Amino acid sequence: MKVLAKELNVSIATVSKALNDSYEISEQMKSRVREAALRLNYTLNPYASSLRNKKSKTIAVILPEITDSFFSLAINGIQSIAEKKGYHVLIYLSHEKFANEIAIVSECTSGRVDGVLISIASETTNPDHLLKLQEENIPIVFFDREFEGLDIASVTTNDFESGYLAASHLIAIGCEKPIFLSISSSLGICTKRAEGFKVALQEMNFEFKYDPIFICNGNELEQYNQVQNLLTGIHRPDGIVASVEKLIKIIYTISYEIRLSIPTELKVLIFSTLDYAPILNPPLSTISQPAFEIGKTAADLLFKRIEKKDYNISDNKIVIPSVLVKRGSSS
Amino acid sequence: MKVLAKELNVSIATVSKALNDSYEISEQMKSRVREAALRLNYTLNPYASSLRNKKSKTIAVILPEITDSFFSLAINGIQSIAEKKGYHVLIYLSHEKFANEIAIVSECTSGRVDGVLISIASETTNPDHLLKLQEENIPIVFFDREFEGLDIASVTTNDFESGYLAASHLIAIGCEKPIFLSISSSLGICTKRAEGFKVALQEMNFEFKYDPIFICNGNELEQYNQVQNLLTGIHRPDGIVASVEKLIKIIYTISYEIRLSIPTELKVLIFSTLDYAPILNPPLSTISQPAFEIGKTAADLLFKRIEKKDYNISDNKIVIPSVLVKRGSSS
Repeated sequence: MKVLAKELNVSIATVSKALNDSYEISEQMKSRVREAALRLNYTLNPYASSLRNKKSKTIAVILPEITDSFFSLAINGIQSIAEKKGYHVLIYLSHEKFANEIAIVSECTSGRVDGVLISIASETTNPDHLLKLQEENIPIVFFDREFEGLDIASVTTNDFESGYLAASHLIAIGCEKPIFLSISSSLGICTKRAEGFKVALQEMNFEFKYDPIFICNGNELEQYNQVQNLLTGIHRPDGIVASVEKLIKIIYTISYEIRLSIPTELKVLIFSTLDYAPILNPPLSTISQPAFEIGKTAADLLFKRIEKKDYNISDNKIVIPSVLVKRGSSS
Repeated sequence: MKVLAKELNVSIATVSKALNDSYEISEQMKSRVREAALRLNYTLNPYASSLRNKKSKTIAVILPEITDSFFSLAINGIQSIAEKKGYHVLIYLSHEKFANEIAIVSECTSGRVDGVLISIASETTNPDHLLKLQEENIPIVFFDREFEGLDIASVTTNDFESGYLAASHLIAIGCEKPIFLSISSSLGICTKRAEGFKVALQEMNFEFKYDPIFICNGNELEQYNQVQNLLTGIHRPDGIVASVEKLIKIIYTISYEIRLSIPTELKVLIFSTLDYAPILNPPLSTISQPAFEIGKTAADLLFKRIEKKDYNISDNKIVIPSVLVKRGSSS
């Protein structure tokens, strides 16, 4: 700005005000300054620019893991919209920890981002951090995993119905001891899928000789040990519906190690969008969530609100259905 | 700030200067203002703060795809460092397009980020956009894929040696018509791996009756058609080393469809960090790159330069070796 001021023989304050389109400066002076700025290759500092526009032109995406194919596809869906709108996407990973999520959300306040897309961590048990964000008037849209009972927009899939469908499929192919393998007793996507699974069994007058919902939690090694205990214990199931993609490797690896044949001795069906499902040994049956569509729709909704401050999106609870794809692991 | 000024009975300018730690304001007044700001829950606008510190506290990570397991692991490595430093990570995807990469890099100028980690797109043929960034004094570190011959730091793996090792392995298990399947004739990681592959064959006095480097390019469907032509044509190879992970699904799917048995009729070895390699049908032999380590080391290097402006990192060309993991697909 100093160079510009010298070039035009005016004060730095005048240059600054002209570039900031101040009413104190005449249109003639503004165009002189702009012309000189262009000529001298002067670029506005984007933070100064953000300060003026009160827009960061950035949205935050908060999610648990990037190694899950669902989330990489959802990010692609979100970016397909953000790119069109000329927005930056800040990607944050909570690694399923509640404390990380709180820290991340608190960084999204005070103008750093114009909106937040969030898929909550499996350990999140309290929504206060989200309510605080909402109070600051930063729009939020849940995608895939929502915190239930809040006045916040969400784009999810039909988890209850999919759990119901999964149980029906296992029973139809002859399972007598089906189990739902979950990673959380509080995460909505897991509890809804488990609930649908249980209701289907009840409606089919299934006799419950054991709890059909098995929860394995902790880190990967701990989950591995719990699933190993399940598959070598007295209540060994003959069919598993697993709630998340990361359980694929654990179930397959253990079944190889203890020589338990899939699908002869154990039918397997997993909630997953994994591209490699058809080339696994055996090919994996999946409940495939519309990951790209969920990301795209959630971003669409968020931008409606960003672009029109008084547009209320909070009563939007969009559900996009999942699809059962039968393959060798459940035949 | 108005509320603060009124509360303290001073001018807005005084409040602003005090919050900005101006030399014009006494220490006593500064602490009065700070105390009131704290009491009234006043938060500094982060953009105003960035403007003052001239630090965005953000680094950009530019990469081709998020669906490749290498890049999700590398991002985890980068984030493990950025989190410790209290930095935000902006993730940008080029989708292998040169034009996208140019647009992204130009957005990284003018103070938006403090540094850039980049893995270049397969279509990138000219480094001008990177040189321009360097001229603006924004530090850059290449990870995995670099543009050759520039004075820019890089963290890569030993691609030439790995290509050499891959060819030696195929010959050792009896292949007579091995081929290197690549996705680019310009991307350094591909050409170096291919070169190592070719040199190994030459040193073993291999008779070249055909070109051992086969390049398939374009979108996924186009690549699929080219690989199908290769595997059904007169120069059908009996061993393939594939340069990137996305070729796994194409090669396996085609071999199922045309009933070509892996490994009996076709040995397969792929550059990949895929977690699912051991549970594929058949289990996939891989050249596994140290993805997490590469990301972590590149971020470490970038922060050395960000934290100490006159620290020269550009002659750092760090190489972390890959590992050959033999499994059923090459037995």
